Amino acid sequence: MIEIGAQQEARDTGRPAARRQFDAVRRESEVLASRLTPEDQSIQSTPDVSPTKWHLAHTTWFFETFILKRFDPAYRVFDPAFHYLFNSYYEAEGPRHPRPQRGMLSRPSCADVASYRGHVEAGIAQLIESASDAAWREIAPLIELGCHHEQQHQELILMDIKHVFSLNPLLPAYQPPRRRAPGSTVPLDWVAFAGGLAQIGHDGDGFAFDNEGPRHRVWVEPFRLATRPVSCGEFAEFIAAGGYREPEFWLSEGWATVQQQGWEAPLYWRAVDDGWRIFTLSGERRLDPAEPVVHISFYEADAYAKWAEKRLPTEAEWEVAAEGRPLAGNLADSRRYHPAAVDGAGEGIRQMIGDVWEWTQSPYTPYPRFRPVTGAIGEYNGKFMSNQMVLRGGAAVTPANHIRTTYRNFFPPSARWAFSGLRLAEDA
Amino acid sequence: MIEIGAQQEARDTGRPAARRQFDAVRRESEVLASRLTPEDQSIQSTPDVSPTKWHLAHTTWFFETFILKRFDPAYRVFDPAFHYLFNSYYEAEGPRHPRPQRGMLSRPSCADVASYRGHVEAGIAQLIESASDAAWREIAPLIELGCHHEQQHQELILMDIKHVFSLNPLLPAYQPPRRRAPGSTVPLDWVAFAGGLAQIGHDGDGFAFDNEGPRHRVWVEPFRLATRPVSCGEFAEFIAAGGYREPEFWLSEGWATVQQQGWEAPLYWRAVDDGWRIFTLSGERRLDPAEPVVHISFYEADAYAKWAEKRLPTEAEWEVAAEGRPLAGNLADSRRYHPAAVDGAGEGIRQMIGDVWEWTQSPYTPYPRFRPVTGAIGEYNGKFMSNQMVLRGGAAVTPANHIRTTYRNFFPPSARWAFSGLRLAEDA
Amino acid sequence: MIEIGAQQEARDTGRPAARRQFDAVRRESEVLASRLTPEDQSIQSTPDVSPTKWHLAHTTWFFETFILKRFDPAYRVFDPAFHYLFNSYYEAEGPRHPRPQRGMLSRPSCADVASYRGHVEAGIAQLIESASDAAWREIAPLIELGCHHEQQHQELILMDIKHVFSLNPLLPAYQPPRRRAPGSTVPLDWVAFAGGLAQIGHDGDGFAFDNEGPRHRVWVEPFRLATRPVSCGEFAEFIAAGGYREPEFWLSEGWATVQQQGWEAPLYWRAVDDGWRIFTLSGERRLDPAEPVVHISFYEADAYAKWAEKRLPTEAEWEVAAEGRPLAGNLADSRRYHPAAVDGAGEGIRQMIGDVWEWTQSPYTPYPRFRPVTGAIGEYNGKFMSNQMVLRGGAAVTPANHIRTTYRNFFPPSARWAFSGLRLAEDA
Amino acid sequence: MIEIGAQQEARDTGRPAARRQFDAVRRESEVLASRLTPEDQSIQSTPDVSPTKWHLAHTTWFFETFILKRFDPAYRVFDPAFHYLFNSYYEAEGPRHPRPQRGMLSRPSCADVASYRGHVEAGIAQLIESASDAAWREIAPLIELGCHHEQQHQELILMDIKHVFSLNPLLPAYQPPRRRAPGSTVPLDWVAFAGGLAQIGHDGDGFAFDNEGPRHRVWVEPFRLATRPVSCGEFAEFIAAGGYREPEFWLSEGWATVQQQGWEAPLYWRAVDDGWRIFTLSGERRLDPAEPVVHISFYEADAYAKWAEKRLPTEAEWEVAAEGRPLAGNLADSRRYHPAAVDGAGEGIRQMIGDVWEWTQSPYTPYPRFRPVTGAIGEYNGKFMSNQMVLRGGAAVTPANHIRTTYRNFFPPSARWAFSGLRLAEDA
Repeated sequence: MIEIGAQQEARDTGRPAARRQFDAVRRESEVLASRLTPEDQSIQSTPDVSPTKWHLAHTTWFFETFILKRFDPAYRVFDPAFHYLFNSYYEAEGPRHPRPQRGMLSRPSCADVASYRGHVEAGIAQLIESASDAAWREIAPLIELGCHHEQQHQELILMDIKHVFSLNPLLPAYQPPRRRAPGSTVPLDWVAFAGGLAQIGHDGDGFAFDNEGPRHRVWVEPFRLATRPVSCGEFAEFIAAGGYREPEFWLSEGWATVQQQGWEAPLYWRAVDDGWRIFTLSGERRLDPAEPVVHISFYEADAYAKWAEKRLPTEAEWEVAAEGRPLAGNLADSRRYHPAAVDGAGEGIRQMIGDVWEWTQSPYTPYPRFRPVTGAIGEYNGKFMSNQMVLRGGAAVTPANHIRTTYRNFFPPSARWAFSGLRLAEDA
Repeated sequence: MIEIGAQQEARDTGRPAARRQFDAVRRESEVLASRLTPEDQSIQSTPDVSPTKWHLAHTTWFFETFILKRFDPAYRVFDPAFHYLFNSYYEAEGPRHPRPQRGMLSRPSCADVASYRGHVEAGIAQLIESASDAAWREIAPLIELGCHHEQQHQELILMDIKHVFSLNPLLPAYQPPRRRAPGSTVPLDWVAFAGGLAQIGHDGDGFAFDNEGPRHRVWVEPFRLATRPVSCGEFAEFIAAGGYREPEFWLSEGWATVQQQGWEAPLYWRAVDDGWRIFTLSGERRLDPAEPVVHISFYEADAYAKWAEKRLPTEAEWEVAAEGRPLAGNLADSRRYHPAAVDGAGEGIRQMIGDVWEWTQSPYTPYPRFRPVTGAIGEYNGKFMSNQMVLRGGAAVTPANHIRTTYRNFFPPSARWAFSGLRLAEDA
Repeated sequence: MIEIGAQQEARDTGRPAARRQFDAVRRESEVLASRLTPEDQSIQSTPDVSPTKWHLAHTTWFFETFILKRFDPAYRVFDPAFHYLFNSYYEAEGPRHPRPQRGMLSRPSCADVASYRGHVEAGIAQLIESASDAAWREIAPLIELGCHHEQQHQELILMDIKHVFSLNPLLPAYQPPRRRAPGSTVPLDWVAFAGGLAQIGHDGDGFAFDNEGPRHRVWVEPFRLATRPVSCGEFAEFIAAGGYREPEFWLSEGWATVQQQGWEAPLYWRAVDDGWRIFTLSGERRLDPAEPVVHISFYEADAYAKWAEKRLPTEAEWEVAAEGRPLAGNLADSRRYHPAAVDGAGEGIRQMIGDVWEWTQSPYTPYPRFRPVTGAIGEYNGKFMSNQMVLRGGAAVTPANHIRTTYRNFFPPSARWAFSGLRLAEDA
Repeated sequence: MIEIGAQQEARDTGRPAARRQFDAVRRESEVLASRLTPEDQSIQSTPDVSPTKWHLAHTTWFFETFILKRFDPAYRVFDPAFHYLFNSYYEAEGPRHPRPQRGMLSRPSCADVASYRGHVEAGIAQLIESASDAAWREIAPLIELGCHHEQQHQELILMDIKHVFSLNPLLPAYQPPRRRAPGSTVPLDWVAFAGGLAQIGHDGDGFAFDNEGPRHRVWVEPFRLATRPVSCGEFAEFIAAGGYREPEFWLSEGWATVQQQGWEAPLYWRAVDDGWRIFTLSGERRLDPAEPVVHISFYEADAYAKWAEKRLPTEAEWEVAAEGRPLAGNLADSRRYHPAAVDGAGEGIRQMIGDVWEWTQSPYTPYPRFRPVTGAIGEYNGKFMSNQMVLRGGAAVTPANHIRTTYRNFFPPSARWAFSGLRLAEDA
């Protein structure tokens, strides 16, 4: 999950930095929740979606369970019942409150969860100061992991509350609308890559999740990648051309899903007389054709690519193309929380980082010689490696210092509530 | 729904009384909700259960829709969206928010609903004063109906929050436990009734729901009725004797339900090493064998009766036995919100009113010459007359001035979240 | 289940008559199956429908289980596995093959079942001759019951194969079409009944099922009954008037069923450009407006009645009106297997017997002082007394000597695959 | 789907060989069905399973639709309704009978299907003789494809009837038991492979399905492969060690499936007092620990490998190891229809071909530069490339001349009714 590398020494002495990272991440979660009422924070709209309050508590449970209970003999558990209530899926940590029942918990209240957060934060702060050097070498990477774990849940808080609000006929806005310039985007162009024997995966420098490694060789055929993600306007053409009514573009399971779910457009699109409206975290508004399309399933991404006579990139292709680029883009620190049309200036590949997670054609599988860590914490990523597809690059709701070119996000091919879009590829 | 009878005149002039009834009923709903947090008030645990907040708003919608919008041309609708959000099932009032989605509404908030209540209450208060005498003759029975409608929802608030809390591993208590004397009950005895050509149903004096009339003749064979409901101790004997494992006592659908749901005891009973604990609105505590059994389905009531070699009474038998008795008992005004063992003093039939709703063997069907009122308000009762069984007598959560001997409560035979118990009958 | 009355003596000496009845009933089942291939006889289209082969075996199992195994010590069981395979729902007879899996049994083959039938028939024939007089007094009513049980399954064979064939795009015909005169029917008229203290239920003379008794008093208000069932033409008017699109005519559960199932017409009706076609046991053909409507649920019958501003009769009203009439009509012996328009000649009430089972507004409940027989055979009728509605009068697929005016058929209110129609009633 | 290569010329002149292949394949299907009654051939036990009769007709439909209707203007369609009834999933061929309803078709009968087969066979035979050389160049590969398609369905006939019979409490045997020597197997050993830049995929010589190509480069790390598949005895140790009760060995979806389905052993295993019995196509018998384990899902294969501290091979590893080995093994021509313990003689890797399909850790995805053929026939393989895992090597029910080392079989990770087992791998 977390590499034990050469720079470990620096980290051993990095207690103030750890404290700063911890404080910043914890504060950001509070900021995200602060726009929501206690009632907003308690709702679970589907088994996949969790209440904000649960996210706030579960990320705290992570620090309590994997750090405080293990390294601080004096730590006093905040509430023994929380171990059951706020375990997400760690089988090795024993039975847990069933996922589909997370919305049944009016108690503990938001205020209780805030107390829980404070209690654990005080514990961590104290531990950072007081741990022996030997203990600190074990604790430091766990705090870093806990921070990245919480950042994942920050993105989930935004994804999940968007879904919750979308089911409310009042269509509440998470934040006030921003002034937006009329959109325009650059024409779609192609960049060629020579392929060959490449290396992908995290190389042990800086933080990464276990599923990003080991770095390994992979053969890549020559390919071309589109300079930007597919736009809403382009996707609307696919719809207008009967894309959701023609089975020929679809994988068999995708087509079955279209029929069963009655899909006729991406999630959060609503047809009105003269076009489309979309629901965003700033409320419902008119669709901007220049923006990247978002909230589509893998099936829709794949069908669009087939209709366009292109294909999705593999994750190796995506990573080869992204490597070495700056980790900048429309990420959560913009507080826009919605993808934006690419800026006209600039050349070549754009928007690899931020805006929308890009579906790849790669199923989520272990890299060669992948080994999960032992113990409960090893359940973090490896056990989800079936029936999921890899997405790359982060989205407008991803914390800015959380994304890497080696980052492997994953969702089932039918999932649409993530900020997922697509970028086309083709053989060279 | 509401009889237009001889005492109408009294009512025409009864504006102060109407106002008092209205104020008292509305205040009681607030009292019931006041023990609950906004988060508690927003949860829907099953499609049958509604959030407290929804009950508070829907009862207000009833007054707004059927009185203010119709009789007060100057009435300004509080929020047009609420017509959609808080319609329960009145098809004639147009489309409505789907019942299973009531728990998705974090907005409007509890505070919004409080404002809505205030707005409508002011409107009604003003209308009571200002309506013409002609209008008042139409309005008065609707206010009375709206008050009784809201009292039904007061009982639902208690039933529903009990279910919500029961799913929370913290087992929250709605109210603090009361001091209770160690229970004891009177031995079960029998009272004989001669039967013959009886009359049942409401006779037009005082308020009644439409389904309680018309009063009509019915032939009743001689029968005997138990002096009190079946107790928890008696029901525990049925369990110990294998009652939930032996199909011979069960209706075929009841047995299928037992298998599918894995029933082994009444709802809210939990087996512990040395007996049973039950969950109440005052938290979980040890089972008191002297108390009436509650939260059983019709299927369980019927199976118990067969095991005991008795039967359930018909609703005609129940009403014949109850007629003329005082409308007193352990009702919601006791604020006990749980059935209690009958007091040792006294003789003959006990606890007909209050404590537990008593399942009868009568399916819920229209009385001869029953006619629902025309218009949306006629959807009140008649359209539910299939696959439901009648219960009689009120329970510890029923408002005291809401119960009558002719009152017909009804639930599907598999429902258990109402405060439902049973009283045995036999042929004489 | 079967009365032990004064005429028992006659029956004791009635061995040749019992043998004749037994032989005739058993032969008729074979005749019904003879039009079907082994593949036809093996299909189960829904959990409610059983394969023909299963009906042939189960009716045989009934004679084997309740007569041969009990009264003939020398009886050699045909195949021990059949006890498990062909028990329908008798819990007291032990575990059984799950109902929804009846279509999984390619083995035993039709030929095996034919052998089973022969084996048991030989056993019964021998027992009729050889049983002691004392034994015969017990056996005789069981043979009679077994014959009536098998006649019920003869009707089910026809109902079930019709459903099976209706799912086959080839729309196979069970039998060749009959020449039919162009239909016409008599105008619908009304006959008044005075009501009062009536008696209904079987009185102990001749065979009846246990659920038809005891005969008992019931108070009946004055009413009127339509002279014939509702016709297809009349029902088509209800459809054309938007009957399936207007919730106001429907019980709440009925309307939910209409929505969920997408009902737009009775089962087996298919809209074509210029009207309707219906699927019958003689294949698909044009709808004849003069024929009684058939294959409607209770919900549809009730909605039609409300639309027509009438109501369904109670079962007491139906029986009062039918009592004393001849038990003649369009029954299975006509081999027409479809309701027919009433013949123009004649007056007053018509078609009470035969053509279509008539839905009543009466839920299926026990008559006062009803007691099922003890033992497995007592599971015959009583345990189905919940969530079902009573139908009266028999249909074009009911064996002619199987119907009585006291006969209580029953189905869930949403069932449509029985030959069910309706006759209107109104208050007098 | 089928390569157009250099050896095409030979094929152009290969009409007698095509006829021989066609006749042999068609005859084998009849042989497989000949042990089954018409009733056996009509049953569908789950939506995934099809009736034998349907397989016999669908393979015929393939020749009729893609060859006779396209290349023989004089061809007279056997029955127009069959186009709808026997299309499997070809969207481009229009609407089709729903898959879960295939068991509803008692008509057409087995005899009708036999006539259909004869009619189409005569048509193909005539076309082989009479087609112009130009047409023959198009027809020849389609006949070869149709033959391989039918061979796939021959395996399905055996898989499917095994499932059907397994649901019958009589546990019918498809064929009589064979005399079997007491089993023994060789100890499990390991063979090392150096890896490197390998090539996998079909290279255009001889028949292959479209999904087997194009041949392409792939980087393979050094690895070791077990010399034989995992045996029943070894798998029983996993069970005894609590394998089905410990979440730590399972993928998250796998564990959820174990819970939901109540899995405690492979499909067709039954625990008895002193061990296990298994159901085979030769009936139920005692488990032989020496035989390869079969009828396990990918999840079970993966969990076993994790428990054994090994892993599943990738499909590239499997193919690298298999390349160049003889295509011999326990295949369908043995008529054993069940995997057998490896013979003690011999060395190195054994049983790569035949006995059991071996789950790989590779999701089923397109090879680089894969292009499906255009038109309906292009729906053959590509559209299933989601949520499926690749299996390699053929099984004891796979036709002998149907298997190749490049052959990619695929099933969802939860499927168990295929003859699927596993072979272990590890990093070198």
